[in-house]
Amino acid sequence: MKSAPFTFQIDLPGGCPTYFEHHLERTLSAMQGQFLDGAAYDRLIKNGDPLLYEVFEISRPEVAGELIHGVSILRPGKVGEEFFMTKGHFHTVLDTSEIYHCLHGQGMMVMETPEGEWAVEALRPGVVLYVPPRWAHRSVNTGQQNLVTLFAYPGNAGHDYGTIESQGFRKLVVEQDGRLAIVDNPRWLPPAGRA
Amino acid sequence: MKSAPFTFQIDLPGGCPTYFEHHLERTLSAMQGQFLDGAAYDRLIKNGDPLLYEVFEISRPEVAGELIHGVSILRPGKVGEEFFMTKGHFHTVLDTSEIYHCLHGQGMMVMETPEGEWAVEALRPGVVLYVPPRWAHRSVNTGQQNLVTLFAYPGNAGHDYGTIESQGFRKLVVEQDGRLAIVDNPRWLPPAGRA
Repeated sequence: MKSAPFTFQIDLPGGCPTYFEHHLERTLSAMQGQFLDGAAYDRLIKNGDPLLYEVFEISRPEVAGELIHGVSILRPGKVGEEFFMTKGHFHTVLDTSEIYHCLHGQGMMVMETPEGEWAVEALRPGVVLYVPPRWAHRSVNTGQQNLVTLFAYPGNAGHDYGTIESQGFRKLVVEQDGRLAIVDNPRWLPPAGRA
Repeated sequence: MKSAPFTFQIDLPGGCPTYFEHHLERTLSAMQGQFLDGAAYDRLIKNGDPLLYEVFEISRPEVAGELIHGVSILRPGKVGEEFFMTKGHFHTVLDTSEIYHCLHGQGMMVMETPEGEWAVEALRPGVVLYVPPRWAHRSVNTGQQNLVTLFAYPGNAGHDYGTIESQGFRKLVVEQDGRLAIVDNPRWLPPAGRA
């Protein structure tokens, strides 16, 4: 981990940064139960478990004054009517935010709070998105190319994937009759409903 | 101040964001004593006190989990041999970092720590720069166009301009015989030397 200032660039359209310290690859099998169309999901897994996204991250000490940052590259594709997407997560320290700068591709950020608010914001090259503290967030690639975003969040934020794995997001981004639609997630249940 | 997620874009090459909450303009007269060539400084002030830079900022609550962010637009120009630059500052909470994404123009970030380390990193479109906690930072426009950068830092960071105002940066970026040079600041004295 570097102690002095440093720079890197991001090769576009691919999205790989010229410097990183951690590389994560998530294939479809990491998303069990998250996509609506189970049959389409199973077919894709059998046909080779496609890569959904990669994250190139610059690690920093996990303390509040640092900013962990990097590049997310979400592939284009669909599972049934639903677009390829990231797992999505709350921050473990709920009162921490995140900033995104979209560099390539077309997509949506699906967000919600524990209190039931939800929001969907469009991503296209040049868009800066601010995800305030308390908002879970998931990127969705609605285009034909890689969705490439630069991100930064406080070093102490942490990732809570479990809440979304168990309850999903309230909203899904799908293609219906050739058009983008934001629909209710029929599988979603409020946490209290699962008790 | 928005409580929900939001997006904005940055009009290039000008650099003005489509959404902001605070707009700061700094003219040369805010930089008294920071440029080496006092005669050149005085001439420019008499000729109309030119605008050096603008900052468009999205305000956020000044707490650690938030990220204050915005766009800095530093004009091209020189005061004698020295390029137009920002005041530069430490963060009041020294253990806070900052991330920059250069969107337009050519420049340098001049940085130093209270312990005497210094660094200069080149900025050009596409460069991501991480300024770790404890590093004071000043942008310098070495090009012919606006230097436009997107920045983000923890909401609790604060700005300590006074330390740089009184002691300057250890290094200056100048043009000598038509070439860029990083030179020692002859006016700089360690804080102990001023006691």
